[in-house]
Amino acid sequence: MSSATAARFAGRRVLITGGLGFIGSNLAHRLSEHGVHVTLVDSLVPEYGGNLFNISGIEAHVRTNISDVRDEHSFAYLVRDHDYLFNLAGQTSHLDSMHDPYTDMEINCRAQLSILEACRKHNPQIRIVFASTRQLYGRPDYLPVDEKHLLRPVDVNGVNKMAGECYHILYHRAHGLNACALRLTNTYGPRMRIKDARQTFLGVWVRSLIEGKPFEVWEGTQRRDFNYVDDAVDALLMAITDDAAMGRIFNLGSSEVVTLEQLAQTLVSLHGSGSFVHRAFPSDRKRIDIGDYYADCGLIEKTLGWRAQVPLRDGLAHTLRFYQKHLSEYV
Amino acid sequence: MSSATAARFAGRRVLITGGLGFIGSNLAHRLSEHGVHVTLVDSLVPEYGGNLFNISGIEAHVRTNISDVRDEHSFAYLVRDHDYLFNLAGQTSHLDSMHDPYTDMEINCRAQLSILEACRKHNPQIRIVFASTRQLYGRPDYLPVDEKHLLRPVDVNGVNKMAGECYHILYHRAHGLNACALRLTNTYGPRMRIKDARQTFLGVWVRSLIEGKPFEVWEGTQRRDFNYVDDAVDALLMAITDDAAMGRIFNLGSSEVVTLEQLAQTLVSLHGSGSFVHRAFPSDRKRIDIGDYYADCGLIEKTLGWRAQVPLRDGLAHTLRFYQKHLSEYV
Repeated sequence: MSSATAARFAGRRVLITGGLGFIGSNLAHRLSEHGVHVTLVDSLVPEYGGNLFNISGIEAHVRTNISDVRDEHSFAYLVRDHDYLFNLAGQTSHLDSMHDPYTDMEINCRAQLSILEACRKHNPQIRIVFASTRQLYGRPDYLPVDEKHLLRPVDVNGVNKMAGECYHILYHRAHGLNACALRLTNTYGPRMRIKDARQTFLGVWVRSLIEGKPFEVWEGTQRRDFNYVDDAVDALLMAITDDAAMGRIFNLGSSEVVTLEQLAQTLVSLHGSGSFVHRAFPSDRKRIDIGDYYADCGLIEKTLGWRAQVPLRDGLAHTLRFYQKHLSEYV
Repeated sequence: MSSATAARFAGRRVLITGGLGFIGSNLAHRLSEHGVHVTLVDSLVPEYGGNLFNISGIEAHVRTNISDVRDEHSFAYLVRDHDYLFNLAGQTSHLDSMHDPYTDMEINCRAQLSILEACRKHNPQIRIVFASTRQLYGRPDYLPVDEKHLLRPVDVNGVNKMAGECYHILYHRAHGLNACALRLTNTYGPRMRIKDARQTFLGVWVRSLIEGKPFEVWEGTQRRDFNYVDDAVDALLMAITDDAAMGRIFNLGSSEVVTLEQLAQTLVSLHGSGSFVHRAFPSDRKRIDIGDYYADCGLIEKTLGWRAQVPLRDGLAHTLRFYQKHLSEYV
């Protein structure tokens, strides 16, 4: 983090929902490096991203509080005495949201409302950044997708994340909370869930590759952009400390756009071995697929000065090395 | 209703949520005139629009089922054996949604999901129209507002209605349900709630006028469009019977745009007496006000052939006559 950003965290207390998950734990590592006091809230629901190994090495420097964002009573306590809230907890599986829409709604919609109500009532000065998603756009009308694109989510998860994001912006406008939202694209890197595709399909690709099994590429011609997790962490840190971000919504993304086929080939080549097979979309996935997607990140670059720094090849190489070393902790 | 539309209801069974409310009961009257079998579902929550007097004269021809859309068990039974579902139940007060966001969410968001799940599981052939609202647009970027305008709701009610609408379109795309949505503008007419401003500010204006008290016009320069309830009922009937509507979202509205000041003057002149006072916005209302709004209704006109027929003066005159006669049933 830049020295200007680091200065804004000096002596401050940080709360991270989903703090044992992929992005939350990477953020906790970064903040710990700078001596920032961090409280991690995580439910450790087995189907989600939380994993105690994610804070290996920093356990002594963070406070870990196991609780669920659906539990509004504990959150009303936890939110006090914190300066920054990185609100990253969420149900992330698109497919699970179609089979069990209520759970997705309770977490991505209702719990967001209760988190914001807790902030409004118990800590109205806190600064909040909400991890939203490009899934809100649905199938793009045009590319790259900027923040003016209509929202037409194609799955229950997208609808609920849209409501969750919208509550944050609304609580800024109507109640003066310092809240903003980042619409993340495909984020990858160390500490992501690789057990299954609930968080990202890249997780299972990496797992299969390291386990020496062929992985499946569905179709493969879809173009996407990817962010290495360190870049996403940068954006979170820059947004939460900048007044210019408050009340706003920003795309994350990358100018490096690849097809899933190219991504698979890059992974295999970096790994030095392995293979993948093409497969047609399963029908339940096809119905909620969004086709090509990549973001226009001009707004966050202009407003906050953020742009993705880590080339895809480098990020993938780091990621492979991490899981080669720590596979057993993630499967 | 046109003879073509009437033919599509012959022998069919109709379910209306919010059936004892303003629009639901007017729809029930219309369908009853044509001998259509109607079941009305309503919770009769005192703060909402349900009123048993609204079905005065047709009690014997409709089935009334007092239950709440939040009660997913009764709905799973009720949805069976019906051909059409007019899904009109909702919490409508913007201000209440800011003070009690959970109740608004349970009704306008969670209950919509459970209604759709009930249809998907127990009656996937049913045709559904959802009563959405222009509130989804928030403060317009341009006028008139068409369906391509971004959604930026300014209150909790708007966020939850947005999610409710989005679930309907999603269940069409992902599960093949025959669902569509109409974004209603200010709708007025006989059987609206006039006890307070929870449903429409026009209600309290009409009440005060008839009770001989001055009514309050907040600011007054805001331009709006209005639909007489018979026009809204026409749109609901046309949408639910037309395959071209399914999966789609349409604005309702009117080309007759007036300021609230002009509307107040028209009401006083039609009534022959009465007065109003200008007042600045209360701060809690100002924060969630949307300024000028009127709709572009080109899409529904082109697709379904609907346009508003009742001139504002005529609609207001009908409305005043209704409440002069029946005031005691509504206050």
